[in-house]
Amino acid sequence: MALKTRQEYRAALASLRPNIYKFGRAVTDVTADPLTRRVVESHSRAYDGAHDPRRCELFTCRSSLSGATVHRWNSLCVSADDLVSAARFKREMFRLTGTCTGGACVGWNALGALWAVTFEVDAVRGTCYHERLRRWALEAEEAGWMVAGALTDAKGNRSLPPASQPAHYLRVVDEDSGGIVVRGCKAMIAGVAASHQVLVMPGTTCREADRDFAVAFAVPRDAEGLTVVETRRPSDGRELEAGFDVPETGITQAFLLFRDVYVPLDRVFLLREPEFTAGLIRYFTANYRAGIGACVAGQGDVMIGAAVLMARANGLPGRVFRDRLVEMAVNNETTFGLGVGAVALGRPHPSGVWLADPLTAHVNKVLVSRLPQETRRLCQEIAGGVVETGCLPSSADLDSPEYGLDLREALAGAVDGETRARAARLAEWLTVGAGVPGCMHGGGSPDGARAVIRSLLCLDACAELARTLAGIDAPVPEPEA
Amino acid sequence: MALKTRQEYRAALASLRPNIYKFGRAVTDVTADPLTRRVVESHSRAYDGAHDPRRCELFTCRSSLSGATVHRWNSLCVSADDLVSAARFKREMFRLTGTCTGGACVGWNALGALWAVTFEVDAVRGTCYHERLRRWALEAEEAGWMVAGALTDAKGNRSLPPASQPAHYLRVVDEDSGGIVVRGCKAMIAGVAASHQVLVMPGTTCREADRDFAVAFAVPRDAEGLTVVETRRPSDGRELEAGFDVPETGITQAFLLFRDVYVPLDRVFLLREPEFTAGLIRYFTANYRAGIGACVAGQGDVMIGAAVLMARANGLPGRVFRDRLVEMAVNNETTFGLGVGAVALGRPHPSGVWLADPLTAHVNKVLVSRLPQETRRLCQEIAGGVVETGCLPSSADLDSPEYGLDLREALAGAVDGETRARAARLAEWLTVGAGVPGCMHGGGSPDGARAVIRSLLCLDACAELARTLAGIDAPVPEPEA
Amino acid sequence: MALKTRQEYRAALASLRPNIYKFGRAVTDVTADPLTRRVVESHSRAYDGAHDPRRCELFTCRSSLSGATVHRWNSLCVSADDLVSAARFKREMFRLTGTCTGGACVGWNALGALWAVTFEVDAVRGTCYHERLRRWALEAEEAGWMVAGALTDAKGNRSLPPASQPAHYLRVVDEDSGGIVVRGCKAMIAGVAASHQVLVMPGTTCREADRDFAVAFAVPRDAEGLTVVETRRPSDGRELEAGFDVPETGITQAFLLFRDVYVPLDRVFLLREPEFTAGLIRYFTANYRAGIGACVAGQGDVMIGAAVLMARANGLPGRVFRDRLVEMAVNNETTFGLGVGAVALGRPHPSGVWLADPLTAHVNKVLVSRLPQETRRLCQEIAGGVVETGCLPSSADLDSPEYGLDLREALAGAVDGETRARAARLAEWLTVGAGVPGCMHGGGSPDGARAVIRSLLCLDACAELARTLAGIDAPVPEPEA
Amino acid sequence: MALKTRQEYRAALASLRPNIYKFGRAVTDVTADPLTRRVVESHSRAYDGAHDPRRCELFTCRSSLSGATVHRWNSLCVSADDLVSAARFKREMFRLTGTCTGGACVGWNALGALWAVTFEVDAVRGTCYHERLRRWALEAEEAGWMVAGALTDAKGNRSLPPASQPAHYLRVVDEDSGGIVVRGCKAMIAGVAASHQVLVMPGTTCREADRDFAVAFAVPRDAEGLTVVETRRPSDGRELEAGFDVPETGITQAFLLFRDVYVPLDRVFLLREPEFTAGLIRYFTANYRAGIGACVAGQGDVMIGAAVLMARANGLPGRVFRDRLVEMAVNNETTFGLGVGAVALGRPHPSGVWLADPLTAHVNKVLVSRLPQETRRLCQEIAGGVVETGCLPSSADLDSPEYGLDLREALAGAVDGETRARAARLAEWLTVGAGVPGCMHGGGSPDGARAVIRSLLCLDACAELARTLAGIDAPVPEPEA
Repeated sequence: MALKTRQEYRAALASLRPNIYKFGRAVTDVTADPLTRRVVESHSRAYDGAHDPRRCELFTCRSSLSGATVHRWNSLCVSADDLVSAARFKREMFRLTGTCTGGACVGWNALGALWAVTFEVDAVRGTCYHERLRRWALEAEEAGWMVAGALTDAKGNRSLPPASQPAHYLRVVDEDSGGIVVRGCKAMIAGVAASHQVLVMPGTTCREADRDFAVAFAVPRDAEGLTVVETRRPSDGRELEAGFDVPETGITQAFLLFRDVYVPLDRVFLLREPEFTAGLIRYFTANYRAGIGACVAGQGDVMIGAAVLMARANGLPGRVFRDRLVEMAVNNETTFGLGVGAVALGRPHPSGVWLADPLTAHVNKVLVSRLPQETRRLCQEIAGGVVETGCLPSSADLDSPEYGLDLREALAGAVDGETRARAARLAEWLTVGAGVPGCMHGGGSPDGARAVIRSLLCLDACAELARTLAGIDAPVPEPEA
Repeated sequence: MALKTRQEYRAALASLRPNIYKFGRAVTDVTADPLTRRVVESHSRAYDGAHDPRRCELFTCRSSLSGATVHRWNSLCVSADDLVSAARFKREMFRLTGTCTGGACVGWNALGALWAVTFEVDAVRGTCYHERLRRWALEAEEAGWMVAGALTDAKGNRSLPPASQPAHYLRVVDEDSGGIVVRGCKAMIAGVAASHQVLVMPGTTCREADRDFAVAFAVPRDAEGLTVVETRRPSDGRELEAGFDVPETGITQAFLLFRDVYVPLDRVFLLREPEFTAGLIRYFTANYRAGIGACVAGQGDVMIGAAVLMARANGLPGRVFRDRLVEMAVNNETTFGLGVGAVALGRPHPSGVWLADPLTAHVNKVLVSRLPQETRRLCQEIAGGVVETGCLPSSADLDSPEYGLDLREALAGAVDGETRARAARLAEWLTVGAGVPGCMHGGGSPDGARAVIRSLLCLDACAELARTLAGIDAPVPEPEA
Repeated sequence: MALKTRQEYRAALASLRPNIYKFGRAVTDVTADPLTRRVVESHSRAYDGAHDPRRCELFTCRSSLSGATVHRWNSLCVSADDLVSAARFKREMFRLTGTCTGGACVGWNALGALWAVTFEVDAVRGTCYHERLRRWALEAEEAGWMVAGALTDAKGNRSLPPASQPAHYLRVVDEDSGGIVVRGCKAMIAGVAASHQVLVMPGTTCREADRDFAVAFAVPRDAEGLTVVETRRPSDGRELEAGFDVPETGITQAFLLFRDVYVPLDRVFLLREPEFTAGLIRYFTANYRAGIGACVAGQGDVMIGAAVLMARANGLPGRVFRDRLVEMAVNNETTFGLGVGAVALGRPHPSGVWLADPLTAHVNKVLVSRLPQETRRLCQEIAGGVVETGCLPSSADLDSPEYGLDLREALAGAVDGETRARAARLAEWLTVGAGVPGCMHGGGSPDGARAVIRSLLCLDACAELARTLAGIDAPVPEPEA
Repeated sequence: MALKTRQEYRAALASLRPNIYKFGRAVTDVTADPLTRRVVESHSRAYDGAHDPRRCELFTCRSSLSGATVHRWNSLCVSADDLVSAARFKREMFRLTGTCTGGACVGWNALGALWAVTFEVDAVRGTCYHERLRRWALEAEEAGWMVAGALTDAKGNRSLPPASQPAHYLRVVDEDSGGIVVRGCKAMIAGVAASHQVLVMPGTTCREADRDFAVAFAVPRDAEGLTVVETRRPSDGRELEAGFDVPETGITQAFLLFRDVYVPLDRVFLLREPEFTAGLIRYFTANYRAGIGACVAGQGDVMIGAAVLMARANGLPGRVFRDRLVEMAVNNETTFGLGVGAVALGRPHPSGVWLADPLTAHVNKVLVSRLPQETRRLCQEIAGGVVETGCLPSSADLDSPEYGLDLREALAGAVDGETRARAARLAEWLTVGAGVPGCMHGGGSPDGARAVIRSLLCLDACAELARTLAGIDAPVPEPEA
């Protein structure tokens, strides 16, 4: 039975080798340690959904590989409907957790991109990457794994390619008949602490000189030689405190140090194939950026809710902020709906997976670098100064025997002081705290998206339309540079 | 054979009774009079497309009623694909004409909305509106008609309902066994001069007191008692001049004075059914506002082209304006793609037509009230001062024997003076001239869209998400007003 | 007595040689011809102000040259207060006319810039330009002249300098002991038809190879060899009609063809001094762009008024649009107040005139390329579809004996039909008609402003602040290109 | 000698009674405790400036009261130049600290507002508040005090006035011949831990029923009965850590619990004078909101610097981000320059102090609620994902003996890993950390500003301008509600 429960999920995580670190210390049990238990809780809610009658239709689906009912994030998206459901699932996960659940997202998206590319590589090279990937995908769906996806390299000097600064990119450093040895660092990888496996692929297009960097594979999160260092997030120190200054959910992002990790060949899905990396990135980003609008829409839903809570706590009726709440909704539905539009304008790949329209998807990425920030600003504008800088005493101070009651009285509005404080802390967390999902750069920068748009934009065709309408007979050529 | 040629189209128009006026005079032949020949030319290009191998797949389709190949704008949209193709068709028409071709749009959309509502009315009332509409639709597709859609009433004082100011709304004033008599004014109706028929429906929701206003029907454009007064557009006077200061395409908007027009019953599709008007408006606006993003995207494509032409004419390479051209494209693809998203998120109506998702569609309307204006601003910023206020001598001055050559020399850039002037005039026409399509208010105001969004926005559900995440147990109710 | 009346002003204009053309025909009397009488009416209101007790304090001032009371636009601005008053005067002129009165603006600003530069040239070269300018300025104030300022050359290919394409720039082609001969074209010059004199200066920085283009001088508007061709504006054809479809005020922009115009030396204020042109442009643009925010604020005031009129005509109380009207006011006061800030941050030039702070002034220019467009959009959003594309029948149609009364009834709202139509036509004229002032590119493009900002922006100083705060000891140099 | 050194300033602070709390514990020495030492360091830099030859002209001035040279923040602003210098001082303080130094700002501004109002009250009532204030101001300048200003009450239910919920506002609860007893809470008060005194005034307009709340006075920060509870800020937990994850400067905001504090009469500057509170708020906000644009401009300067550092660290030349850096500068100079414009458009109060123009000042507040957020977004867009969510390992992890060197290697770019990390942490702190200054709501909400703009906006006058230009004779009245 492919569907797992929250308990099964956590038991599997707890059994992994403790190779995760933060603040200089190791995390023994990710499900219990305050450094990681919130990200595990967030992902647990994805498993809950599979068993919740109101959500199971969205959170599970029929596998195109096995025909079994599987967690949706373990499935291949083989139709526009599948990708739209993926978007709905992501939005719902943000609504349930207030933030990103990267372990149920990036690896899933990488699987689809690799599905298409391994199919292409095999057709050209006669290799067997696609079959290896199929077997691993079947294992993943059967095990109900969370799979973190690892693309972004450390990158170092952005004006230099991988081959000029190997230390800043993950690469193959050795191999034998049974497998390969990889070394290097993947940076800013979301949800690793909540995942069982990591699916690794190049984060940038490789040229011929970068052959050793053109590698994709899967490893268990606790593979020998793999060290995971979790990064900080705004106000993450609160996760170590008692009290309610931070919610019970969360996301993490990690640096993955591959210190000569051995990967058996049946888990290697691309090896020294630089000419296929451009396509891999293209497929990954098209689908990812179609979906990311759903993520920020889900967080925007929670921001609307937090703003409404604060307005009510302040004794102000929603009508005062009516236009701004509509504006927030406009932002949410724009990124969500445009992502759906990108999917609907997409096409099937010969391998079976559905690929979103890249132009529309990258346009959505540009919007995602702006609209959620405006939604956030509106949330802070409605919620008031208490949210803008988290400006209220700590949970501990509200419990002070010396002055806690005075504070609680002062903080009360149309609701009691703690309720108002909790609402404010949520709004802070969402807009300027650890709940900020990082979607502006997640899955690549807006500049990268603009570069793709530029490459897809046919200025000459537009100029011809205009020339015809203007009744100009002579050609109007682009000036020499 | 349902597909008509440009010549057949124009011949049919030319045979109509001359009931169109502008500047106080009658238009005898709409296909030849400079007051109307540009709008006829625009619509002629829709017929051309049916016979153009590159466009016929988009410009024609198989009728769900007859199985025949028909002009796409005569078809019912019975699937999401149909509505997406409708959006593509609209975008392409803007690309071919630089502006709106309302005769191939509003009536088409009204047909779909009436299709659904007549189905509902008949089911409840046992009436036969749906069958009447089906017959008329079959006649329309067979004849290959252009059908203007007339919704907007004169409205008068916006704070009063129709029944309080009957002179400002179209209404039934009499009837006999064979038909009804209608009186009143429909305002700002696009493309009438290029249409064979007018499909009329209420422009606002009617209450019980407004029964006589809840009427829908079709009439030939030259029906007895119908007087069409065309409105002005910016710089429309140029259409009466020789020279190139205005393109050869165009759109018109008219006031339709119904001065006791008799409509036979077989063309009456709704009669005194106020309770169904809300649904009719809802269906009309959902689909219309899903599609309108395609219109402005098409005009935006031409604005990109005009900006590129001007940059080239000024000797400046596109790279100087690269980021702004990308920005224009982002605006275009956002409204286009979000409209597609609204369609994809829609659902089929039991009558067979596809209805776009209203929330997403109305969000798109809000965007359409902003993004094209920014695209326009960018076009003017790139194109320079010559465009911003049309600041160059008239075509007539360029031909002056006394100083025309001096002007042409002065106006030349990287291209000759007339080419630069033509490009500038196109950009002017698109951004501050008769080519401005009027999409901000076309099909209803952005405020109307915001009102719908507000009604569809579930603040309480969002507040509950937030309350749960914040760990608040007590309810946080909306304050009493 | 330096102060002139409207009658004296117009008499002086009427006596000039008829060298103005539009639509291929000559204008005999600028004060009466419908092609030019509106711009003359606009400027007449500046003279009215001098004799209006409510405005004379703003519209006149004490000359720093003669001590006499003069029209403000004939004075030198020798203090921050003078420049702020100039800004207030410009705003008030927009409020009185709804558009630009360029004859009371550009020449005035050029005078100040030349005042400073001639002072500098004389100090370095031992020339006597400053004294010549002083005498001309005294004559101008005594005569109460309107003085159009002519900077912008035809420019041709923007990537080439003047010397590479002499036909596209004004230049000295000959000289004798008494004067110089100039040839070429100045383009888009505002208010010439309403001016007595034209003050000419370079529109771009000249290099050594461009010596002949580095020339400044004054000529009467009807100088021998000077041909003025007025350009079109949106909907300018309406100015030839009867009826109310266009207001009674207006602005013009002209191409000035200098076909070997002889300028006596006492009117030559700069001759072949390329190294001083950069400063001249710098002084001109700093003060001009500080003031231009006042212009668009004045037009914005009228746009607020037009929007309010339309809302009232539609029977809608102002409160419905309250937030948007505030937003329009925010835009108006931002550009106005920032211009005042630029003045207050300025400094006196050794020659006596006050120079605005260039960084702030150019920032204001960037805002002027955006905020008024948003104000305009809001005006159209409030005013409705009738304004967006001018969508109502012509004035002539409202007078039609056949259907005029029906139209008037249809157009009526909370006011009669003609009142509503007049309000709509004003809003159209302001936002998409001949009243659009052209401030985005007027006085130079926003790109030019951004280039100046870039040159004034000290990135290294900012980086040092950040480096210190970050506690970074090592230098962080700019990467090699 | 009024000018104090950093050492004298800190010694005076250290001698105060320990009445400051955070996280449930008391701060014994604000100059040393990690909870407060950063805010003290920030304010120390204001004293440094007085003794720094490059800054002393700006950081000190001649007292209009005593003629002595004093710290600028202890002076009265009696001219437009004084207020512009105040703005420059604020901007420079942000540049030196990266954040707000509220102890050198709010009390200073309250002093000016009270100066005007006490003058007015005394004139009407024959009281002696003005003289009391003068004496206290002299003492403050002589002592070189930092003076926190306390306006904002806890406010509770925003739809109820103070008298309906006394617990949420500061009020007089008792008095005797020598003084008054005050009780209640002031919330979100900046810089208290770095201040010697607190100047208290009403934060809202009082009506007659709110007499007891209409009170203004000064108390030492360690007054008996006053308990200060510092609030949290984003990522403030880092201030308790070793390492470089947070800069050495900072700001604090506190809740001030007045638990029956006795204030001697010579420190009471307003007592039960509700009718003067509206003016007090008006004067305070006009000057405060004129100046706040300088604060955010200063922080924007640092954000430009941080973005440049990150770009360089990433090996990217500034030219890649040229347009965005210009955009950031446009935002900075807009709010700075508009504040200067508000000052220049102001007027002197009869009491001697200069009052900024309220319309322009409140418009600036609206801009301050938007432009810095956009600047912040641009900083994050340029700086990359590492900044957006603080996504890099902690300082402690970089020092890990187990994997620290690997991380440092991975993080290196065109600079070493720690340098890049430090730059990223600064950008994070500025945009989503404890350095966010809180200017959107600081000194009142943007909604409050909009309400003032609305009240100052003369819609009828604008409508009259439009009516005249449109040639409408009849009045066009506002519809009845």
